[in-house]
Amino acid sequence: MKSFKVALAQFSPYIGNIESNVQRMIEQANAAKAQNAELIVFPELSVLGYPAEDLLLRPSLHKRTQQAFEQLATVKDIVMVFGFVNQTEDGQRHNAAAVMKDGQVLGVYNKQNLPNYSVFDEKRYFTEGHQHLVFEYLGHKFGVLICEDVWSLQTAQQLAQLNVETVLVLNASPYEVGKPQHRIDTLQELAKQLNLHLVYTNQVGGQDDLIFDGTSFVINNSGDVALRAPSFQESLSIAEYQIENKAYKLSEAVPVLGTMAEIYQSLVMATRDYVQRSGFPGVILGLSGGIDSALTLAIAVDAIGADKVQAVMMPYTYTSQISVEDATEQAKRMGVTFGIAEIHPIVNSFMQTLFPFFGNSPADATEENLQARARGTLLMGLSNKFGNLVLSTGNKSELAVGYCTLYGDMVGGFAVLKDVYKTIVFELAKYRNTVGDTIVIPERVITRPPSAELRPDQKDQDSLPAYDVLDAILYAYIEEDQSQDDIIAKGFDKDLVEKVILLVDRNEHKRRQGAIGPRITSRAFSRERRYPIVNGWKAGV
Amino acid sequence: MKSFKVALAQFSPYIGNIESNVQRMIEQANAAKAQNAELIVFPELSVLGYPAEDLLLRPSLHKRTQQAFEQLATVKDIVMVFGFVNQTEDGQRHNAAAVMKDGQVLGVYNKQNLPNYSVFDEKRYFTEGHQHLVFEYLGHKFGVLICEDVWSLQTAQQLAQLNVETVLVLNASPYEVGKPQHRIDTLQELAKQLNLHLVYTNQVGGQDDLIFDGTSFVINNSGDVALRAPSFQESLSIAEYQIENKAYKLSEAVPVLGTMAEIYQSLVMATRDYVQRSGFPGVILGLSGGIDSALTLAIAVDAIGADKVQAVMMPYTYTSQISVEDATEQAKRMGVTFGIAEIHPIVNSFMQTLFPFFGNSPADATEENLQARARGTLLMGLSNKFGNLVLSTGNKSELAVGYCTLYGDMVGGFAVLKDVYKTIVFELAKYRNTVGDTIVIPERVITRPPSAELRPDQKDQDSLPAYDVLDAILYAYIEEDQSQDDIIAKGFDKDLVEKVILLVDRNEHKRRQGAIGPRITSRAFSRERRYPIVNGWKAGV
Repeated sequence: MKSFKVALAQFSPYIGNIESNVQRMIEQANAAKAQNAELIVFPELSVLGYPAEDLLLRPSLHKRTQQAFEQLATVKDIVMVFGFVNQTEDGQRHNAAAVMKDGQVLGVYNKQNLPNYSVFDEKRYFTEGHQHLVFEYLGHKFGVLICEDVWSLQTAQQLAQLNVETVLVLNASPYEVGKPQHRIDTLQELAKQLNLHLVYTNQVGGQDDLIFDGTSFVINNSGDVALRAPSFQESLSIAEYQIENKAYKLSEAVPVLGTMAEIYQSLVMATRDYVQRSGFPGVILGLSGGIDSALTLAIAVDAIGADKVQAVMMPYTYTSQISVEDATEQAKRMGVTFGIAEIHPIVNSFMQTLFPFFGNSPADATEENLQARARGTLLMGLSNKFGNLVLSTGNKSELAVGYCTLYGDMVGGFAVLKDVYKTIVFELAKYRNTVGDTIVIPERVITRPPSAELRPDQKDQDSLPAYDVLDAILYAYIEEDQSQDDIIAKGFDKDLVEKVILLVDRNEHKRRQGAIGPRITSRAFSRERRYPIVNGWKAGV
Repeated sequence: MKSFKVALAQFSPYIGNIESNVQRMIEQANAAKAQNAELIVFPELSVLGYPAEDLLLRPSLHKRTQQAFEQLATVKDIVMVFGFVNQTEDGQRHNAAAVMKDGQVLGVYNKQNLPNYSVFDEKRYFTEGHQHLVFEYLGHKFGVLICEDVWSLQTAQQLAQLNVETVLVLNASPYEVGKPQHRIDTLQELAKQLNLHLVYTNQVGGQDDLIFDGTSFVINNSGDVALRAPSFQESLSIAEYQIENKAYKLSEAVPVLGTMAEIYQSLVMATRDYVQRSGFPGVILGLSGGIDSALTLAIAVDAIGADKVQAVMMPYTYTSQISVEDATEQAKRMGVTFGIAEIHPIVNSFMQTLFPFFGNSPADATEENLQARARGTLLMGLSNKFGNLVLSTGNKSELAVGYCTLYGDMVGGFAVLKDVYKTIVFELAKYRNTVGDTIVIPERVITRPPSAELRPDQKDQDSLPAYDVLDAILYAYIEEDQSQDDIIAKGFDKDLVEKVILLVDRNEHKRRQGAIGPRITSRAFSRERRYPIVNGWKAGV
């Protein structure tokens, strides 16, 4: 034999649905065999999916896992390396990998490094392993690591000391902007340093707020990238190890995505997976003529198709004519179901009912919120009647400072732009208009000054700083954990920084009731930024 | 000296507000000195408060903690044992206790057992300690433990082996029904077994969804409870150690609360702390004539006073006359601001606006939800205009099965009954009517069959099983983690169990957007029950 083939099964498990995951794994093993692969590597915890959260604590998990092993044992003539929950007799749970051949478990590896920071809570569920797994097959020495393990130099080094040639790495590594390339860059150095080939299989797909980009790869001990699987889609990639060369054959390079393409595709996949796996027939969203809803509409159409998307324009007194025109135009260009529902009678009925309570109180944000809540209730009514999921259209900048209405524009089951700063929203809209033949988002939507149109001649910049300034402050405070004093020291206006940070801190209660949305940064408003609502911490130092 | 005195400072820190916490600690130390105490024990992490979540990751925490030490160092002539975050030079954070006398730190103890299950995430923040702290003072040998440490027999045993006489235990132990007594029962056994006196100081107060009941105590090595501090209120208790008797003097017994009194008081304190610490001038809630809102109103009044509570009845076609009568009557008895706002014009305006979309679709839950959302929007309008916090009135049974409307009756910042099953709601209402001279909840509210009154002659039991059956199934599934098959095997109707479990699983998305509310069980819908929304797990085994 001059070479052997290893398959990387970059697949999208359905969290918790062991039966369907196992079925998919068997299909992939058979497809890999059809391409003469001798070994197939699945992602971390592939049998259950990642992260399964408290499903990991269900008493029947052990029994279900045993049944999964029985089914997987029917696969013959290929070695499978897959992730599962290893429950030992003393009641410990391990995040584990099994090596199975012809129904026999040749070895089990328990993950040694359990991340418990950022979005990870593995110490809530798992006990650390303390032993390596190394096996010989095809005259080649393989080792196994699981995700975080490969980022521990010490753990990887130990495999090198055991004379391992190829490390099979099972992963469920969540996406962040730039991370697909960052992983490769970092592990190229490691491969060279430790003289190890790396076969890295990553989970793909959206799971609630987490995006798994896939982007699996093979890196030779020279540091060369022998194979790079596509991002944001399932794939079964075959790497060929050439025994004489002692290296994996270099495959044709997959084009690497630019930053905006990468983000855009991540949001499309996350939206598709959420809608489809939740079982919704389609989506509905409010189209305002502004850029957030315009971009959300484009993503929704790209995710599930125009025939499954309904857009509703809900104008009021302060809605400009160009908003109606632009919304109508975009809906037409994208071919979605479109309707217009004026909200005057609804807002008036609220105002009349509230008059005995309000008396002559001057108008304030209350009246603006009534418009937003009338719209939210209409969308939910349409959703309840026809079953489509409401997509929320707010962006990260708004959500950070609370420039949004709870139970109003915040309604929805999935907030597509939740982790996208407004400045990036603009970039993504421009990017989308470069894809395909049609400019789907009317130019004016991108160039006009942003406005919530909740009072006469309102502009976002009446209440907020320019978005490039706002986003820079937010980024320093949220992503970089900088203190108020540090941010002021960078040259931002003191009063402005204090105001922005106060708004961020005060709006935790709003964010807590917001829809989930896909995470694309290293500090999304989700499971990884856990602040108390009642909170006496004062910004400053 | 024939005796010495130890103070237990059961206080309610303001999470994150180190300045005010330290100020309060100094006041308590001085008050203890005034009562001739030689030593004062504060709760776990008393300087910062518990749980501070990601505030623990703020870079300035170390500097702020140092400032706290400088201020605490001004206290003389009493030994203070308090909780703080110990950041070591290698960047590790420890959940720690300091022993300070006359401005000198005599010793530091790092918590050895870090809980990372249920509501706890300590391994996200802290590194385990590996050393005991024992010190002699007043001719007596003291050891220090922090919360979880005392539940580890091994850790406590080591102190006994070091010939410690009294263990000072600093705690932030969250409340669950019956837990105040359960702690004492368990530690009485431990004290006897290990021949140790225990001085147990617990945090008190509501913090978001967590309730800390206080109920600090001193247990002698005989197992006798020498002192028991009150529950649900701050207290500075003084225990006197009688040297000749080698035991703490038995104080007068505090009356132990019955179960309903305990729960009721826990909800009152949680509501008060949330409202006051969030800075709201008062609360507003929708009063429907049903038992949930009636009980919520009573709790609100007991928490912050009738003058700060506004109730609004929002009748529609399906609201019965007795609902209006009972709501009016209760508002009158309790002396709260009360108003009635008919929602017909609002619901009609929604229906008219939606007619072109709905056409002749038959009525379904959509129309019911419109009523609930009209009410929610009215409450939010009143809240926005006058600044009162909206209290949400739904109970745990409803929230479990999704028998509630997102953005409708679920609106609000604090859901007082979120963790209270409907059967317990009835018990609490009856209990409240036994307190004081007035029957505050009209009898009929308790005795009539529950109804959401969202369609003609609707009763909850048209859609749901009887609440005693529903709650028993929910308890088995949620609190006891039993499988569907196990619950059916207990004798419940198969179809019913399947339906209930399906509803629980399918309504995760609703709960995720609900208000926080106080936790009184061992498995609240909050930080301790973490299920994916997209979730393919099938009930059954």
